[in-house]
Amino acid sequence: MNGAAPRKSFGSDNHAGTHPAVMRAIAEANTGDAVAYGADPWTEQAVGDIRRLSGAQGDVYLVLNGSGANVLGLGLLLDRHEAVICAESAHINTDECGSPERILGTKLLTVPAPEGKITPELIAARLSGRGDEHFAQPGVVAVTQSTEFGTCYSLDELGAIKEFCAANGLRVFLDGARLANAAAYLGCTLADLAANADVLSFGGTKNGAMGVEAVIVMRPADGVNAPYLRKQHMQLSSKMRFLAAQFNALLADDLWLANAAHANAMAARLASGLATIPGVDLAYPVQSDAVFARLDPGHVAELQRDWTFHVWDESASIVRWMTAFDTQESDIDAFLSDIAAASGAVRS
Amino acid sequence: MNGAAPRKSFGSDNHAGTHPAVMRAIAEANTGDAVAYGADPWTEQAVGDIRRLSGAQGDVYLVLNGSGANVLGLGLLLDRHEAVICAESAHINTDECGSPERILGTKLLTVPAPEGKITPELIAARLSGRGDEHFAQPGVVAVTQSTEFGTCYSLDELGAIKEFCAANGLRVFLDGARLANAAAYLGCTLADLAANADVLSFGGTKNGAMGVEAVIVMRPADGVNAPYLRKQHMQLSSKMRFLAAQFNALLADDLWLANAAHANAMAARLASGLATIPGVDLAYPVQSDAVFARLDPGHVAELQRDWTFHVWDESASIVRWMTAFDTQESDIDAFLSDIAAASGAVRS
Amino acid sequence: MNGAAPRKSFGSDNHAGTHPAVMRAIAEANTGDAVAYGADPWTEQAVGDIRRLSGAQGDVYLVLNGSGANVLGLGLLLDRHEAVICAESAHINTDECGSPERILGTKLLTVPAPEGKITPELIAARLSGRGDEHFAQPGVVAVTQSTEFGTCYSLDELGAIKEFCAANGLRVFLDGARLANAAAYLGCTLADLAANADVLSFGGTKNGAMGVEAVIVMRPADGVNAPYLRKQHMQLSSKMRFLAAQFNALLADDLWLANAAHANAMAARLASGLATIPGVDLAYPVQSDAVFARLDPGHVAELQRDWTFHVWDESASIVRWMTAFDTQESDIDAFLSDIAAASGAVRS
Amino acid sequence: MNGAAPRKSFGSDNHAGTHPAVMRAIAEANTGDAVAYGADPWTEQAVGDIRRLSGAQGDVYLVLNGSGANVLGLGLLLDRHEAVICAESAHINTDECGSPERILGTKLLTVPAPEGKITPELIAARLSGRGDEHFAQPGVVAVTQSTEFGTCYSLDELGAIKEFCAANGLRVFLDGARLANAAAYLGCTLADLAANADVLSFGGTKNGAMGVEAVIVMRPADGVNAPYLRKQHMQLSSKMRFLAAQFNALLADDLWLANAAHANAMAARLASGLATIPGVDLAYPVQSDAVFARLDPGHVAELQRDWTFHVWDESASIVRWMTAFDTQESDIDAFLSDIAAASGAVRS
Repeated sequence: MNGAAPRKSFGSDNHAGTHPAVMRAIAEANTGDAVAYGADPWTEQAVGDIRRLSGAQGDVYLVLNGSGANVLGLGLLLDRHEAVICAESAHINTDECGSPERILGTKLLTVPAPEGKITPELIAARLSGRGDEHFAQPGVVAVTQSTEFGTCYSLDELGAIKEFCAANGLRVFLDGARLANAAAYLGCTLADLAANADVLSFGGTKNGAMGVEAVIVMRPADGVNAPYLRKQHMQLSSKMRFLAAQFNALLADDLWLANAAHANAMAARLASGLATIPGVDLAYPVQSDAVFARLDPGHVAELQRDWTFHVWDESASIVRWMTAFDTQESDIDAFLSDIAAASGAVRS
Repeated sequence: MNGAAPRKSFGSDNHAGTHPAVMRAIAEANTGDAVAYGADPWTEQAVGDIRRLSGAQGDVYLVLNGSGANVLGLGLLLDRHEAVICAESAHINTDECGSPERILGTKLLTVPAPEGKITPELIAARLSGRGDEHFAQPGVVAVTQSTEFGTCYSLDELGAIKEFCAANGLRVFLDGARLANAAAYLGCTLADLAANADVLSFGGTKNGAMGVEAVIVMRPADGVNAPYLRKQHMQLSSKMRFLAAQFNALLADDLWLANAAHANAMAARLASGLATIPGVDLAYPVQSDAVFARLDPGHVAELQRDWTFHVWDESASIVRWMTAFDTQESDIDAFLSDIAAASGAVRS
Repeated sequence: MNGAAPRKSFGSDNHAGTHPAVMRAIAEANTGDAVAYGADPWTEQAVGDIRRLSGAQGDVYLVLNGSGANVLGLGLLLDRHEAVICAESAHINTDECGSPERILGTKLLTVPAPEGKITPELIAARLSGRGDEHFAQPGVVAVTQSTEFGTCYSLDELGAIKEFCAANGLRVFLDGARLANAAAYLGCTLADLAANADVLSFGGTKNGAMGVEAVIVMRPADGVNAPYLRKQHMQLSSKMRFLAAQFNALLADDLWLANAAHANAMAARLASGLATIPGVDLAYPVQSDAVFARLDPGHVAELQRDWTFHVWDESASIVRWMTAFDTQESDIDAFLSDIAAASGAVRS
Repeated sequence: MNGAAPRKSFGSDNHAGTHPAVMRAIAEANTGDAVAYGADPWTEQAVGDIRRLSGAQGDVYLVLNGSGANVLGLGLLLDRHEAVICAESAHINTDECGSPERILGTKLLTVPAPEGKITPELIAARLSGRGDEHFAQPGVVAVTQSTEFGTCYSLDELGAIKEFCAANGLRVFLDGARLANAAAYLGCTLADLAANADVLSFGGTKNGAMGVEAVIVMRPADGVNAPYLRKQHMQLSSKMRFLAAQFNALLADDLWLANAAHANAMAARLASGLATIPGVDLAYPVQSDAVFARLDPGHVAELQRDWTFHVWDESASIVRWMTAFDTQESDIDAFLSDIAAASGAVRS
């Protein structure tokens, strides 16, 4: 059976399969019995390594997917009645079918965030009703790194948010589904990024794993309820070793960073090539594995006959092109060539 | 790395690893790109095969674990205000940390069920407050097959429940985390079992999968909201092909039935052996892969030095011994030998 | 004890007390025993009269306050996973502390609504993700009549929304906390308004009641679960006759309309007077009992020394002045005089 | 209009109307404007007086009914994932349509409680799964005083529960819908009772109020979120003065205690009279305003022709007879006479 698109997909970094080293680690973990639910040596290793890499004093919880990581992470930081401040473009707001509201009963207080990046000023604008029982009470600020538009917060920008939040009784949750791409782009460590959050997710799935994410709790007090919430959220895996083995492979020899750096490089190559094609403009700076571009709707239709990708904003004719750990230079070059041709075909 | 217990675990059927054929199928699915979230040929095949095997007119939804299957299944059948009738011993009541209450806001109306099996009479006893706004309103009856005590409902027993429920405006959810074991024990088809439910789960994880369960919706009307609830419940996998491949392997050549039949046979062998050991009594009929036995607390401690298993009911000194697809006759025989020795050691 | 502000409050229509006729009806209902929870003749009368006035085929449910009416009304119309489209300025979005999200687990999909009024075009803009499991699925459109800015939808505007919703599989909930003011302004019946909703609330509290609202279900099928949801939502009153008696007084001789017409007239008088005061502009058309005006922040501070009212939008220096059933012409004239003086004082 | 049963109802203490002093206080509070949502002098007085009487260091929150008080009180004490230990017979378990589960997402871990009274031993039996993520985690013990069977915990019994809970990391919520009856029966103060709880409700409605309950928070830390939860739970009244005025009347000259003592005395008179009627047995000790009696089903039917009361347990033929603040000695005597006649009639 072959489910592959005829050409490399630019539809999403989760159209890619599993990195061979990850697949190998999964197979190697399949050695007889192991105690279920995480009391196994693979999990011990993964959790320990992620704690060390992130500098967390609290614990690390492996979960099954990105929504699971986001909702658990928010749930750890939110009081029962509290709301979340986030960008309008935040994945938790736009792409999770209302899961945070359904599962946590929380309200998302959105702010329009240029390039997907929230700022202390934008957060401050949402604080006017604090202490008044009629208004939703923000308790957490959710930040995505890298953002849904492929941009990265600088460490200074993240630090400013963290500082503002700490000074204002707010906790920071960092949605790190593509945190590896940010680390690769910024040339920083996981700990540099984690230091700016109270709880964060660290994504494996979009970076070569088969399907695993980690929820990292920076301070022990914030994680006291985590095991129970993970279970209630249906995110506790019985054969946990097969989740842990994926992280073990990604963390060995910094494969996680190499995968992300490669995907970033492929996006950069795509962006560079686009610069030479008239009529195609970047919508956002390219700082991770995503390229958002404006091009003529006619070109879009032409390209989608052969290539898989999403139109992000139909009204503005913005498309999203994602690279992955396994995107090849030749994929980029072939795609660029077709983009150029499509552009030319319409213009001629 | 090796997380295996020194001897075959009797702790749970999820202490076992992944069946080699399943692991192979996962690896073989790792061929380049596939559209995410289930729009791939592996998922098409798995879903189609499960629909055919179960006789479902509605659709099939792959999810990540047993809690996810139970809560989604219940959620499809419950109106917002409704309660669930189930056995006190039901997994949803005892082992899911209150997830159905947390995620669905439902109340579980429990009945004491001998051998873990609910009956129309037990259900009827919970219906007295219907139509009175002060009382929780049962909308769904949850049945586990095979039960948490390793027993199996006969098809007649299931049919009687279904008929009673249909006549009384109740829907039936069947928790089939170990449905394969029941099919093997009863010598019936998946469709025979599914016909007695409105929605059911069909477990892979405890039967040789790495981690996948299916939620089967018998009638289309009950599944209209399923895609959205699955997403909100954080049970939608992006690289779905790796879930689907597991079922594809289990369904090929009826591996699912063979695995279950083998585990059942190992449990039966254990039960037979126990009959010859004085001081050890079966607590329940052995009808699947579980053996519940009463033995002297001193024997328990002795055995747990070398073997992994759970004390189920400390006050009654009842232990649970689970077999799995990969339990060997030699494991059973060695275990029986130690049980006999431990019993003798204490008695001498 | 006297809690009255030194002068008539323009802070809210719920700063007013209880209309004398309502208070009388409450006292008169205090005659010995009555069966609790609504099985009493006062409730029978109130519910029957509201059904007749509204043209509802379904039933009517008395509840304890406006939030209770809104959350119950939405809950009746929403499937478990569905979202609500509403104006950014909607009370359910801005003034209920996130109660709809907390209690119903729903997401509010807000649209910027000029003058607080949503339109089919604004609704349509929120429908692009329907059928895609990643996106919140709108199921209900919530409309407020009269709006939070004191404006009224015309019957044609409401009809267009209802028609659009019916054609697009959406239900309409009408938040009628000030529905009486709209009926008085439009010169229409309650049935004219109710015909444009599937479920609506009909407010008593802001119109002279002590504290009661009605949830009106237009079609029986939408109300099947209402008794249970009302109870779960903690909105079922035991001594219901004292809620019902309030509506009985308001409905007798159309007191509800007279109260609303009077409050509207007082707001109109205030608006007329403002037209003669330079430096004070109406922010919205005055179509009910609310007057929103822009005036110099210095004037605001001056006026608030003697008068009670809210600054609605600090950045735009917009204040809200509410009238009530018991506002007198002399209150308006005295207030206008002080507004003029304050304006002059600053200008001089 | 007259909704009164032909004879005094023994159906519930909320079949009674409003005590004249309470009604007077409501009418007297109707003096012009007052700031809404509790910033008024009536509320200040009620809240202050209840704090003093109860010895609370935290704050007091007026709410609209008993379910509202229970769910708010539990919500203040429960972490998001936690469960509640309570008696099977607890009102929150049997009579609130699953509201705690729906609104709080909590699980009720019930224990069979003789005479409705929970004990440290019964609580202890529910603690075995603590710290194991698979099991619901009890965080709060809910106690009802007086109980649903009309019995009262002694102060020593309450103290033992409180001590046990404090030693075991559990909080105590006391459902005091009929707390006044317990104070009257025990001859103790509100503070004596409140000292044994972390949060408690103090009922007005069943003791002569029109409809108001107080949630009392003993320590400030437990009440930090109370204003927001009260609002989200739709329990914040806009014209709060009319709730507060009810408590002000009840607290003046200890009317609350006098009302409860009177109702208790009427129940005691009924119980005494029953002792002389053969074939009628008390099911529980009579320690408040409730009399539970076993009598022949034939007698029940006979009596219900003329008198209003509930059959509590059909299978055991147990009925519940409630007195109220306005039950007269002559009501009791007439009822006793009919009970005797019915018993004789059937027997003859």
